Amino acid sequence: MTDVLELYHAGLTTCSKKSRHCLKEKGLPYKSHFVSLGKFEHHDPAYLKLNPNGLVPTLVHNGTAIVESGVINEYLDEVFPDKPLRPTDPVARARMRVFCKMADEYALPATRIPTWTRTKQAQLKEMSQADFDKAVAETPLVDHRLKLQALKRDGFSKKEFEEAYGRMDYVFDRCEAALAAGPWLAGDMYTLADIAILPYIFAFREVRPELMPSHPKTADWFARAMARPATKATYEPSEETRPAA
Amino acid sequence: MTDVLELYHAGLTTCSKKSRHCLKEKGLPYKSHFVSLGKFEHHDPAYLKLNPNGLVPTLVHNGTAIVESGVINEYLDEVFPDKPLRPTDPVARARMRVFCKMADEYALPATRIPTWTRTKQAQLKEMSQADFDKAVAETPLVDHRLKLQALKRDGFSKKEFEEAYGRMDYVFDRCEAALAAGPWLAGDMYTLADIAILPYIFAFREVRPELMPSHPKTADWFARAMARPATKATYEPSEETRPAA
Repeated sequence: MTDVLELYHAGLTTCSKKSRHCLKEKGLPYKSHFVSLGKFEHHDPAYLKLNPNGLVPTLVHNGTAIVESGVINEYLDEVFPDKPLRPTDPVARARMRVFCKMADEYALPATRIPTWTRTKQAQLKEMSQADFDKAVAETPLVDHRLKLQALKRDGFSKKEFEEAYGRMDYVFDRCEAALAAGPWLAGDMYTLADIAILPYIFAFREVRPELMPSHPKTADWFARAMARPATKATYEPSEETRPAA
Repeated sequence: MTDVLELYHAGLTTCSKKSRHCLKEKGLPYKSHFVSLGKFEHHDPAYLKLNPNGLVPTLVHNGTAIVESGVINEYLDEVFPDKPLRPTDPVARARMRVFCKMADEYALPATRIPTWTRTKQAQLKEMSQADFDKAVAETPLVDHRLKLQALKRDGFSKKEFEEAYGRMDYVFDRCEAALAAGPWLAGDMYTLADIAILPYIFAFREVRPELMPSHPKTADWFARAMARPATKATYEPSEETRPAA
């Protein structure tokens, strides 16, 4: 049987980049389905059948949906063991997973505060109350519903920005400490940890440009990771990330 | 070489139960080190060398520290493959990991709002400002620092409770949906998913007793999971969870 891989994604958003990057790094061909968050296509009933959380990305492998970018990436590396992206040594693998967890639990919520303010707030403020209420009602996750409401009203609080900025410091500091051993976050091997953290360092350096020069090992790692062909193919705008209307 | 396993944990707290439970379910003997959160022993410099986040639990395996309960449990199942707690089928394993992620990312933050209010607020309010400021300064994670400050001041906000309660609904709903296939969260096999979600259903049912009767498959799963000998040994108070002073 020929494997058929399909990825539903939102192009250059952080979690979508994680799974697109993993697929490209492993050289796995896939059918790309762009999901427009601005048009709320992630709330379409057909999409919610694949991903009841209304989040991107979703992998569909021979008809079976796999959700959550971190879970998708470990799944891909298990099912397609060529060009491995996980260390075989269990200690290095645990170290890799700590960074993957940090990306999802610690970095992603920190990214949303400035990014949603920049990319979503104007649109939400311009929406009619009826359209906005419909979008909120169709949002499966309570934390996302509350974030949309905060953005429409006053924006995120000072405390939410303080926490987001503190989390950015934390992620940079942890990368810098790990890269003292290096050359990659989990040690000798380029792994899912590098793929998971990269979109956040990419985003944080725009919000907090001072963090890069104060973390020179992380800056060097970032330059090396960004120079890889699979990274370029993932991070540069393309037909896949900005499909024709 | 004989394996030496040591677990630093806080007894009956949610993440500590997760790793104690995994060790007991696999029948792995370990040396137990109780870390008193009330005495801020998780801020001791010696402990912070093992776990720079100042969180429990930490596994030490032949001298190497592994942090994060979810990472610890996958590590244990990889290094000690007897009595496996992960499915071999990659789709079932992905389903397991979605629940493990849900436990860490979605359930744990929801638990902290009512639990910290109940277990920590009185102590924090009674602390002198100098002792409190020292405890906050020694807390490695910014989100924990902000939570401690909120508790000392006014307690958590209405919005924080609303989000926590919404997350509890979500976790119950996702369990109920998965258990329609059952009998366990990832399918036929009792896995790390059941171990990861159990302490949260255990905690949520105390805060939201109405959720159990409205989720009968989850209630049945809970009764079956709680009846297992390893669960009883983990969840019942013992010398390990309440060491003599």
